[in-house]
Amino acid sequence: MTPAFVAIDWGTSSFRAWALGRDASILGVRSAKAGMVTLKPAEYEVVLESHLTALGVDNCVPVLICGMAGAAQGWQQAPYLDAPADLSALASGAISVSGISRDVRILPGVAQRMDGAWDVMRGEETILLGVSLNTRDPMSVCLPGTHSKWASLRNGRLERFDTAMTGEIYALLSERSTLSHALAGVSGVLSAEFDAAVREAIAAPERILQKLFSIRAKPLLTGTAKSAQGADRLSGLLIGLEIAGAQRSGVDMITLIASGVLQQTYARAFDMADMRFTTLNANDLVQAGLFHAAQSIWPERFDGGQI
Amino acid sequence: MTPAFVAIDWGTSSFRAWALGRDASILGVRSAKAGMVTLKPAEYEVVLESHLTALGVDNCVPVLICGMAGAAQGWQQAPYLDAPADLSALASGAISVSGISRDVRILPGVAQRMDGAWDVMRGEETILLGVSLNTRDPMSVCLPGTHSKWASLRNGRLERFDTAMTGEIYALLSERSTLSHALAGVSGVLSAEFDAAVREAIAAPERILQKLFSIRAKPLLTGTAKSAQGADRLSGLLIGLEIAGAQRSGVDMITLIASGVLQQTYARAFDMADMRFTTLNANDLVQAGLFHAAQSIWPERFDGGQI
Repeated sequence: MTPAFVAIDWGTSSFRAWALGRDASILGVRSAKAGMVTLKPAEYEVVLESHLTALGVDNCVPVLICGMAGAAQGWQQAPYLDAPADLSALASGAISVSGISRDVRILPGVAQRMDGAWDVMRGEETILLGVSLNTRDPMSVCLPGTHSKWASLRNGRLERFDTAMTGEIYALLSERSTLSHALAGVSGVLSAEFDAAVREAIAAPERILQKLFSIRAKPLLTGTAKSAQGADRLSGLLIGLEIAGAQRSGVDMITLIASGVLQQTYARAFDMADMRFTTLNANDLVQAGLFHAAQSIWPERFDGGQI
Repeated sequence: MTPAFVAIDWGTSSFRAWALGRDASILGVRSAKAGMVTLKPAEYEVVLESHLTALGVDNCVPVLICGMAGAAQGWQQAPYLDAPADLSALASGAISVSGISRDVRILPGVAQRMDGAWDVMRGEETILLGVSLNTRDPMSVCLPGTHSKWASLRNGRLERFDTAMTGEIYALLSERSTLSHALAGVSGVLSAEFDAAVREAIAAPERILQKLFSIRAKPLLTGTAKSAQGADRLSGLLIGLEIAGAQRSGVDMITLIASGVLQQTYARAFDMADMRFTTLNANDLVQAGLFHAAQSIWPERFDGGQI
């Protein structure tokens, strides 16, 4: 079966491609550590074609990309849609990559131009399109990570969103700050220290700057060695603060899009915060979003109709 | 006139010495970039004696030190007093440096052993002793910096204190995070951006993680070059958060101990927060604290009495 198109999530540091049939069946998968931070613009086509060759995809099959490949520092810049944004308009905002023989399009990101809340996303909007295909109900979506995204969806529209630098600040504090002397990796099992820290941060989020130093001071005063408890406390304080910020903007029932340790960590934090949530899978959703957009862009490759 | 003693504030990275007469007059001053991060234990005596020689201070004059020289990683460890602590007890907690011919003492730091608020200070307690000599009234003291200290004093006692990692987090975010791409040094003159950021952080401190990324997103979307405005916004958000945390613990009338740009910055932030404050000078206070402690330790060198 010839793929209808190849769907690609091409981010800051990773590449994931799915050759999809016209019924959305997965005909082939490729992934690699290759993204905006490692690639020059001229290298994208070479990387792409090597993976398409490995997938056995010939030159007439089009490709639809979302993510940082469309950033100014990526392959070719795809302009932003402005929030509030109708997510079904992502397809019509796609650019065609110029200077190559294959039909390759890149979906736009979304920009929020608002004083005190200037923000951008690239890649998450396609996941959000995937989410919105299943329900028109209002919902709050959390995509945790280096830069967590929190988005309000309603009736297929992205109403507003926030980026929380939780993961990046965790990495800076645990690796490069005074606190690094008190931390010894993560336990892999969330401790009572994590739970207590989440609750503490939610109860008094404005005191975060005053609370962090206790992670260094306690082992210094008790003479204990480095431990995973410090890392759990740091993680709990920061995620608790992130949740307190989301609560402040009215978030309630949450759609959590994460897997593995990140999913477990945020799930535990939402439990501590007494917040209801359901978990969805990012890969499934980004495929669904790309598939929906591809149907608008190349209707002839799907027998001219929606499935 | 022979000094009664030499007062030394010996910190993480700096050394300041004052040869003081028995009436507290300053007979000589030395300062150097030499502290815990640059010195091995065996090097402290050499550095000290070179400055005392330069001051013309002979071997019979004793020396009283406060600060990180008394840390485990410093010259010789001076144990902590526990908070709540009577600051006049600092003198009786001083250790004598062993293995040298001169009479050199190091004042203790203060430890706070309390769940959720484990904390330590070394050096600031001597400044706080200096503050407490002038008034027995309850007061909140703010010593801003890499690790800001906030202390509650009452009737000569240090009741409790917090360390806020404001300066360290500012440095990490401005030099090593995604935000560094949007920052171009500081303007030297606090802008309206700083004022607005302080107010924003005080109005919604729990949203700090969600607000920081706007510093990167705004210039990205408006196409503006790096500017000092981003640095002012970062500084304002973090200092506003620090102040919100202090307000939460009941701080009102503040004694601000700072000079130069740091004093101007915090003074402006307190104005934005509608908080009253008075400014005092750290060098004057640490001298006063060391002088008071020295009178207890070597009463014979002050004609046996208080001045």
